[in-house]
Amino acid sequence: MTSNTKILLKTRCTGLPQEYDFEEVKEAIKDPQDGQIRCETLYLSLDPYLRGKINGRHISGSIFPGDLMAGEAISRVQVSNDPKFNEGDLVISHSGWQSHPIINICDATKIIDHGIPISTYLGIMGMPGLTAYAGLLRLAEPKDNDVVLVSAASGAVGSMVGQIAKIKNCQVIGIAGTNEKCDWVKNVAGMDNCINYKTEILPEKIKEFCPNGVDIYFDNVGGELLQAAIEQLALYSRVVLCGLMAQYNSDSMPAGPNPAWIIKSRAIVKGMVVYDHEDLRKQCMLDISKWIKEDRIQYLEDVTEGLGKAPEAFSRLMRGTNHGKTIIKVNN
Amino acid sequence: MTSNTKILLKTRCTGLPQEYDFEEVKEAIKDPQDGQIRCETLYLSLDPYLRGKINGRHISGSIFPGDLMAGEAISRVQVSNDPKFNEGDLVISHSGWQSHPIINICDATKIIDHGIPISTYLGIMGMPGLTAYAGLLRLAEPKDNDVVLVSAASGAVGSMVGQIAKIKNCQVIGIAGTNEKCDWVKNVAGMDNCINYKTEILPEKIKEFCPNGVDIYFDNVGGELLQAAIEQLALYSRVVLCGLMAQYNSDSMPAGPNPAWIIKSRAIVKGMVVYDHEDLRKQCMLDISKWIKEDRIQYLEDVTEGLGKAPEAFSRLMRGTNHGKTIIKVNN
Repeated sequence: MTSNTKILLKTRCTGLPQEYDFEEVKEAIKDPQDGQIRCETLYLSLDPYLRGKINGRHISGSIFPGDLMAGEAISRVQVSNDPKFNEGDLVISHSGWQSHPIINICDATKIIDHGIPISTYLGIMGMPGLTAYAGLLRLAEPKDNDVVLVSAASGAVGSMVGQIAKIKNCQVIGIAGTNEKCDWVKNVAGMDNCINYKTEILPEKIKEFCPNGVDIYFDNVGGELLQAAIEQLALYSRVVLCGLMAQYNSDSMPAGPNPAWIIKSRAIVKGMVVYDHEDLRKQCMLDISKWIKEDRIQYLEDVTEGLGKAPEAFSRLMRGTNHGKTIIKVNN
Repeated sequence: MTSNTKILLKTRCTGLPQEYDFEEVKEAIKDPQDGQIRCETLYLSLDPYLRGKINGRHISGSIFPGDLMAGEAISRVQVSNDPKFNEGDLVISHSGWQSHPIINICDATKIIDHGIPISTYLGIMGMPGLTAYAGLLRLAEPKDNDVVLVSAASGAVGSMVGQIAKIKNCQVIGIAGTNEKCDWVKNVAGMDNCINYKTEILPEKIKEFCPNGVDIYFDNVGGELLQAAIEQLALYSRVVLCGLMAQYNSDSMPAGPNPAWIIKSRAIVKGMVVYDHEDLRKQCMLDISKWIKEDRIQYLEDVTEGLGKAPEAFSRLMRGTNHGKTIIKVNN
């Protein structure tokens, strides 16, 4: 009989997560109780915020050694013990790094078919897509011809921010960490320019591409990238603080930019947490699926086969050597 | 014949401004040309932003060694060479540290009598009053029962922020640097509590007085005060960055708070420059003069007699040993 494969956090990693920080265990498959379903996981999403949970610094709660690793996943119902779900239904839930989860039906959402690949419900049609959509359109309020700068521009959130900004008639400059990523940002995702912050002098390049300043900075990184961007804000600019890739692997909390930059530009800086924007999800999925079908949105997935490869893929994600939305293909 | 006494910046002061950084000179009094008025200065305003101008770090421009020290002043017209101004008119202008300025009439604003002492037009009825009024009401949008924390709470801006917030039914906690200031903040200005950040442990005291977090932080200081406040923001709080007293005397730009605090609280942080809010000035003066007459607003002026004492008074202001709006009484 099939067993449930689970990957647990073994040690509270310091710095970059390594494969030895995780442990694979198997347990006998379980039957769902009333109000539960048993599923087989199809796709598991790996996201940077999980590193913050390991550090005990994420608002969605912590992961402790011995705990099942958390994560959003798409799975197919095998056995249902509730009339609202049937065998074969596709659901999305935070079922974590396991192959055959038992899920309380209140924690599972049926996937509505929009005619696009289901793995996208973990990326552009899911949490990262909603983050970009709400963060850009609701918090940053882009206007025609605004100059939008976005960090981690080839990532799950950043690539959507840049492309939605293009759809909204903005000029878009991406920041990414390899030439391969920059090529994709410019030549596939269609942003106007992309800066490789590891090989180019970021402040100079921002000045070159944004000679009148940055109207919107969408920050997925923090650290030096935030500092460089905030020094070149245009008057009445908006900054969305969304992610902190520069510090997720760190135990310390580095300082941020001097407040004088914000005063000088009269900027409005907003903290973004996607959970606040659930009310936009339906409209977001309608808009994004439409844009995908119109070929106005490109997306990139970094897919690894096999749940056992999740630790290695997570390590690559946190090193920034992934390319696109990081997904584990679990069962076929 | 009377001469015009002027105080010039002598050296670009490092650290705290000292009396020897300034130089008094006299020149023959001048006659106004067409479109000019000659005035006698009555009250000169000393404000922390002047220190930023000496450092070349203020948006209103720089003051260089040899330049007349800048500053807003109230003066009385002695000789007018324009039909719109008459001898005896009271005007406000940025005429600087001098006793008998020649002012272009486009740079002078006649003072409209609201039935309150004219020195207040440099304080609560002037630029600091408008800063507090616009910064709190327009940028921070206080709601009933909001918990408002304000730094430099006995200062020209902070004392108004706290008192307007009380009028708007908020709970108000001040931060100041001496027990004498704290006493005034609580017992005269009527704020609910005041923390002496030099003798008390600021983070602990903020927690004690704001157990559910800070809804609005109005920052006139930056530095450690901003850090302590931002760590205790309530969800969906607002931060107005208005002044940087902690760094005006410094040549360096210290770092600011980590962006994680803003993300966690979903705060909205706004940079405040009073020049953007000129459209509110008329309403601001009507409201504030009304509140003064209703005895709902108290104000404190730190008045020194004699233009020659301006350097010493400015030094005291920048050391924080002033108490209230710092004003020089020039001619009688």
